[in-house]
Amino acid sequence: MLDMQLAYIGAAAGALGLLFALFTMASVLKEPMGTEKMKQISEAVQEGAMAYLNRQYKTLIPFALVIFVLLFFMHNGTSLAISFIVGAICSAIAGYIGMNSTTKSNARTAEAARSHGLGKALNVSFRAGAVMGLSVAGLGLLGVSVLYIIFKDAVIINSFAFGASAIAFFARVGGGIYTKAADVGADLVGKVEAGIPEDDPRNPAVIADNVGDNVGDTAGMGADLFESYAATTIAAMILGNSLFGLSGALFPLLVGAAGIVAAIIGTFFVRTGEGGNPQAALNVGLWTTNILTAIAVFFLGRSIFGATEGTGIFLAVLAGLVVNVAVGMLTEYYTSNQKSPTLRIAEASKTGPATNVIHGLAVGMESVFIPMLVFAAAIYFAFWAASWVDPAHAIYGIAMAAMGMLSTAGMVVAMDSFGPVADNAGGIAEMAELPPEVRQKTDKLDSVGNTTAAIAKGFAIGSAALTALALFQAFADEVVRNPRLQHLLQGGKLVINLNEPLVLVGLFIGASMPFLVAAITMRAVGEAAFGMVNEVRRQFREIPGLLEGTGRPDYARCVSIATGAAINKMILPGLLAVGVPLVVGFGLGALALAGFLAGLTATGVLMALFLANAGGAWDNAKKWIEAGNLGGKKSDPHKAAVIGDTVGDPCKDTSGPAMNPLIKVAGTISLIIGSMLLH
Amino acid sequence: MLDMQLAYIGAAAGALGLLFALFTMASVLKEPMGTEKMKQISEAVQEGAMAYLNRQYKTLIPFALVIFVLLFFMHNGTSLAISFIVGAICSAIAGYIGMNSTTKSNARTAEAARSHGLGKALNVSFRAGAVMGLSVAGLGLLGVSVLYIIFKDAVIINSFAFGASAIAFFARVGGGIYTKAADVGADLVGKVEAGIPEDDPRNPAVIADNVGDNVGDTAGMGADLFESYAATTIAAMILGNSLFGLSGALFPLLVGAAGIVAAIIGTFFVRTGEGGNPQAALNVGLWTTNILTAIAVFFLGRSIFGATEGTGIFLAVLAGLVVNVAVGMLTEYYTSNQKSPTLRIAEASKTGPATNVIHGLAVGMESVFIPMLVFAAAIYFAFWAASWVDPAHAIYGIAMAAMGMLSTAGMVVAMDSFGPVADNAGGIAEMAELPPEVRQKTDKLDSVGNTTAAIAKGFAIGSAALTALALFQAFADEVVRNPRLQHLLQGGKLVINLNEPLVLVGLFIGASMPFLVAAITMRAVGEAAFGMVNEVRRQFREIPGLLEGTGRPDYARCVSIATGAAINKMILPGLLAVGVPLVVGFGLGALALAGFLAGLTATGVLMALFLANAGGAWDNAKKWIEAGNLGGKKSDPHKAAVIGDTVGDPCKDTSGPAMNPLIKVAGTISLIIGSMLLH
Repeated sequence: MLDMQLAYIGAAAGALGLLFALFTMASVLKEPMGTEKMKQISEAVQEGAMAYLNRQYKTLIPFALVIFVLLFFMHNGTSLAISFIVGAICSAIAGYIGMNSTTKSNARTAEAARSHGLGKALNVSFRAGAVMGLSVAGLGLLGVSVLYIIFKDAVIINSFAFGASAIAFFARVGGGIYTKAADVGADLVGKVEAGIPEDDPRNPAVIADNVGDNVGDTAGMGADLFESYAATTIAAMILGNSLFGLSGALFPLLVGAAGIVAAIIGTFFVRTGEGGNPQAALNVGLWTTNILTAIAVFFLGRSIFGATEGTGIFLAVLAGLVVNVAVGMLTEYYTSNQKSPTLRIAEASKTGPATNVIHGLAVGMESVFIPMLVFAAAIYFAFWAASWVDPAHAIYGIAMAAMGMLSTAGMVVAMDSFGPVADNAGGIAEMAELPPEVRQKTDKLDSVGNTTAAIAKGFAIGSAALTALALFQAFADEVVRNPRLQHLLQGGKLVINLNEPLVLVGLFIGASMPFLVAAITMRAVGEAAFGMVNEVRRQFREIPGLLEGTGRPDYARCVSIATGAAINKMILPGLLAVGVPLVVGFGLGALALAGFLAGLTATGVLMALFLANAGGAWDNAKKWIEAGNLGGKKSDPHKAAVIGDTVGDPCKDTSGPAMNPLIKVAGTISLIIGSMLLH
Repeated sequence: MLDMQLAYIGAAAGALGLLFALFTMASVLKEPMGTEKMKQISEAVQEGAMAYLNRQYKTLIPFALVIFVLLFFMHNGTSLAISFIVGAICSAIAGYIGMNSTTKSNARTAEAARSHGLGKALNVSFRAGAVMGLSVAGLGLLGVSVLYIIFKDAVIINSFAFGASAIAFFARVGGGIYTKAADVGADLVGKVEAGIPEDDPRNPAVIADNVGDNVGDTAGMGADLFESYAATTIAAMILGNSLFGLSGALFPLLVGAAGIVAAIIGTFFVRTGEGGNPQAALNVGLWTTNILTAIAVFFLGRSIFGATEGTGIFLAVLAGLVVNVAVGMLTEYYTSNQKSPTLRIAEASKTGPATNVIHGLAVGMESVFIPMLVFAAAIYFAFWAASWVDPAHAIYGIAMAAMGMLSTAGMVVAMDSFGPVADNAGGIAEMAELPPEVRQKTDKLDSVGNTTAAIAKGFAIGSAALTALALFQAFADEVVRNPRLQHLLQGGKLVINLNEPLVLVGLFIGASMPFLVAAITMRAVGEAAFGMVNEVRRQFREIPGLLEGTGRPDYARCVSIATGAAINKMILPGLLAVGVPLVVGFGLGALALAGFLAGLTATGVLMALFLANAGGAWDNAKKWIEAGNLGGKKSDPHKAAVIGDTVGDPCKDTSGPAMNPLIKVAGTISLIIGSMLLH
C-alpha cells in the first residue's frame, strides 16, 4: 500500500520546517535593534557565542574524521561514513542557525519591550526561539528522509544519529561547563566581592555570562533534542521495517511530518497583549501542537495499519505525549517556589547552609520516584497497545511512544530557546541603561523562560529515556540478524537474561557510568570557574578605574578563558562516553553490551532527574527568599540559600544535562557495532 | 558421601563462636571500671543504649507478629513462621549481647589506658568488639544449622533470613537517625553555639551522642551483617541443594564453620605493646582469619566436590575474600585524608562551603566506578570458576563468593565494634577529667577505629551486593519449581529477558527505590536533629548554672528525644522496604520482581558507595584542616569544611547504611513469596 515515494513527504515536511525557520529569522532580523549601545552589547555576545561554537566544532573535526575513516573501512562503509558526517554537520548547522537567531534577537527583544511593550517582546523572542525549534526538527526530519531515500536502509542511516549524538554530547558538556564557569565568575567576584549588580557592564565576565546562557541552554539543548529526534526516528524505522516492512519504516517519517506542520501552526497561537500572560500564550501553542499531532497520527495510523492496530499504535504515540506533559508537570512541582518541596529547602535555610544542602539533596532524590513510575507505566502501556494484533509488534510501541513525544520537539525547543533571549534582553536593558520599566517587562518574560526551561528539561530527560529504550530494542533487533550471534537467540529472539553473568557484569558497569561522568563534569565546572574567578579578580585589581566606570573591562579575555576551559574539559567525558560502550561491546560481547545499555539508561535517567530537580529547587528556594521571605536578600537564610544554589548550578546545568546524550550516544554506538560483534 | 550429620558441625561451630563470645565478655567484665565518675558515665550510656534497644524491639513486636501470623497461614506455614521469629529473635539477641559488651567496656578501656597503657586498652576494647563479632557469626551459623537440622529444607528456613532482614532494616535506619540526631544536637548547640569542647559533661546531649555511637555503629552494623550472613548462607544452601543435592546444601555450613574457627584464632593475634601500632595488630588478625579460612575451604571443597570442581569453588570463595580486601582498600583510598580525593575537598574549602560540597559530591560519585568494576569482575570470575565441570553450576559460584566474604564476618564485626568502644572511652576520659595522656591513647585507638569503620562499611556494602545477587539466583531457582510459573521458563531455566516490558518496568521501579529511601531517611535526620537542637538550646537557657558547671543537665531527656524520633521515623521507610517488593511481586508478577531486584541491587549498591564515601571524605577533609592545615580550626576553610561534614553526616551514617538492608530485605521477601506468585 505504501511506497518509497512517501519518504518524500518526510523530506518535504523537513524542508518546510527549515524554510519556515529561515523565513522567521529573516523577519526577526527586520526588527530594529535599538540604540548604538544595545547594538554593541548584542554584537559582543554574538561574537563570543560564535567564537565558542567555531572552536567547539573545530575541536571536534579531527575526532569526527577519525570516526569517518573508521566507518569508511567497515562493511557498507561509504554509506555509514556519509550518514555519520551528514548527521554531525546537520547538528552543527542547526546549532549555528539557532544561535545566530537567538543572539541576534536579544537587543531586538529589549527594543520591542521599550518601544512597543510586552506583547511585541514576547513575539520577537518567541520567533527567535522558533527558528531554533524548527531548525532542529526540520533538519532532523529532512536529513533522515533524504538519507533513507538514498540508502533505503534504516540500519545504515543510524550512523546519522550517531553523528548527531557525538556532537550532542560535546555540545552539552562543553556548553554546560562554559555557562557555569562564566556564571560563577560573574557572580562570585562581581556580585559578592565587588558588590555590583547582576549584568553590570563593569563586570568583566558579564559578556561571557550572557554568551553562556546561549551556548548552554540554546545550543546544548538544541543539539540534545536534535540527537533524540534523529535517533528515535531511525530506531522506530528499523523496528518498523523488521515488523511491518516498508510501511513500518515510513510511518515514523509521517508522524514527524505531522509534528512539524503542527508545530508551525502552533507558533501562530503564541501571542499576548500588554498585561497579558506570556505563559498562557506559550501553553496554547504547545497544546495546539500536541492535539493537532495526535489527531493526525490517529488517522495516519488507522489508514496504514488498519483500524485495530492503527488505534493501538495511536495510543502508544499518545502515551509519549502524555509522558511529555506529566514529566513537565512533575518537574515544575518539585522545583517551583510555590510548592512544598522547594519551600522546605527555603525553610531549612534558616538553620544554615548544611541543612539547606541536605534538604536539597533529599528533594532531588525524592523527585525521581514518581517520574520513573510514569515512565514504567508508559512503557508498559505502549507495549500493550502495540501488541493488540500481534504480540511480536509490542516493541514497536515503545519506539512510537518516543516518536510521539519527539514529534513536538519543534515547539518544545522553541519554548526553551526563547528563555535565553529574554534573559539576554534583560541584561542588555541593564547594561544599556534603559528605563526600569523595560527591565520589568523582560524580567516577566525571563521568569516565564525559567518555567519553560524546566519543562524542556523534563522533556529532554523523558525523551532521552524513551529514545534509549527504542535504541535498545533496535539493537536487540539487529543482533538477531547478526549471523555470528545466532547462538544467543532462543526461538528467534535475543534473550538478554539477567541471570547470565555477562548481562549482570554489563548492567553493573553501565549503571555506574553516569556517576563517573557526573563526577568528572562537576569537577570540571569547579576548575573552569576557578580560572574565571582569578581572571575577574585580576581585572578589578589591575585595570585602573574599572569599578568607577572609567576603565574598560577586557570582556574578550573572559570569553576566551571560558571557551578554552569548556573545550579542554569536554574531551575526557566525551572519550569515555564513546569509548566505554566500544570496550564493553567488543571486549565482553553483545549480552554484556545489552546489560550495559539497560543499566546506563536506568541510572542515567535517575541521575538526570536527581541533578536537574535538586538544582532547580535550590535555585528557586533562593529566589523565594530574595523575593523578601525569611528576611530577604543579605539575611542569613539568604546566604545559606546562595550556597545551596551554587552547589546546584553544576548539577542542573552541566552534569545533569550531560546524562541525556550519555545514554543516547551509547545506544547509537551499539547500533553501529551491533552487526560487527563477534560474541 | 555427606550426610545430614555434618550440619551438626555447623551447629557446633556456631555454638563455639557464641560460647567464645560469652566467655570473652565475662573476661572483659572482670576488668576494673576506674573511678566512681567513670562508672556513672558508663552506666548512663549503657542505660540509654539499652533503653533504645528495648523500645526499638518493642516497637517491632506487633510488626513481627503480623508477619508471623501471615506466614503461619501459608503453605508450610508453621515452619516458615517459626523460622522467621527465630531469625528476628537471634538478630535481637546478637544486638543485646554486643551492645551489652561494648557499652560496658568503654570505661574499662579508659581505665586500661590510664593504668596500663595503649596495649591493654586495645586488648580490652578489641575483646569487647569480638563479643559482638562472634555473637553475630556464631548465632547466625547456629540458627541456620539448627533450623536446617529440624526442617531439612533450605527454602523454608530462608524465613530465618527474612526475620533477620526485617530487624536489620529497622535497626540500621533507626540507629542511623538516632546517632546523627544526637551528634548534630551535641555539636551544633554545644560546640558551635555554646563554644564548649566535644564530650564536655555540661552538654545535655553528650550522653545521647555516646549512646548514638553504639546504636548506630555497633548495633546497626551488627544487625546488617547478621542479616547478610544468614541470607547468604541460606541462599547458598538453596542453590547448592538444587545443583548438588545434600552436599551442596551442607557445604556453606562448613565454610561458615571454618570462618568462625579462623576468626577465633585470629582474635589471639590482635595485640600490641606500648608505642605499638594498633592498626597493624588488627590487620594481622584480619589476615590470619582470611588465610586460615581460605586454606580450610580449599581442602573442604576438594574433598566434597572432587579436585577440579572443588578447586573451582575454592577460587569462587577466594574471589569473595579478594573483593573484601579490595573494596576496603578502595574505601580507604577515597576517604583517607592522606590521599588526593579527600585532599581535593579540603583544598576546595578555601573557596567556601559551596565548592567544598561540590567536590565532596564529585568524590562520592567518582568513588563508585572502580568498586563496581571489582564487583563485576568478581561476579564473572566466580561464575566462571564454578562452571569448570558443569556450566549449570556457575550460579553456585556467586553464592560461594558471597559466602567466602561473609565467613570472616566474625572478625570484621569485631574490628568495627571496637571503634565505638574506643570513641566512648575517649568521651569518658574527657568527662571524668582523666589526665590528657589518657585521652591521647584513646584518641589513637579512636583514629584506628575510624579506619576499621571505613573498612567495615566497604565490607557491609560489598557483602550486601553479593548477598543480593545470591538471593537473586536463589529466587530464580525457586521460580523454576513454582508449578504456576512454568510458562516463564525456556529450556527449564527462568529467563529474565530485559527485552520484556515487565522486566524493564520492574527494573525502573527497583532502580528508583534507593533514591526514595535515601531522601526519606536524609530528611528524617534533619527533622530529628531539629528537635534535639531545640531541646539542648532549651536546657542551656532554662537550667541555671549549666554552662558554669554548677547546674546538672537533663541527659535522659535528650536520650529519650533521640529515641522517640528514631523509632517514629524508621516506620515509613521500613514499610516501603517491605511493601514495595510485595506490591511488585503480587501485582506485576515474577518477571517484574526479578527486574525490580536487579535494578534495586544496582542502584542500591551505587548509592551506598556514593553516600558512604562522600560522607567519609567530607569528614576526613575537615579533620585534615583541624590538624592545622589551611589555617586550622576556626579558619574560613575550616568553617566551610564543617558544613561539608554536616552534609555528609546523614549520608554516611543514615541513608548510606540503609541501602544495604534495603536490597537484602527485598531479596529475602522475594524468596518467601517466590513459590506463591501466580504470574
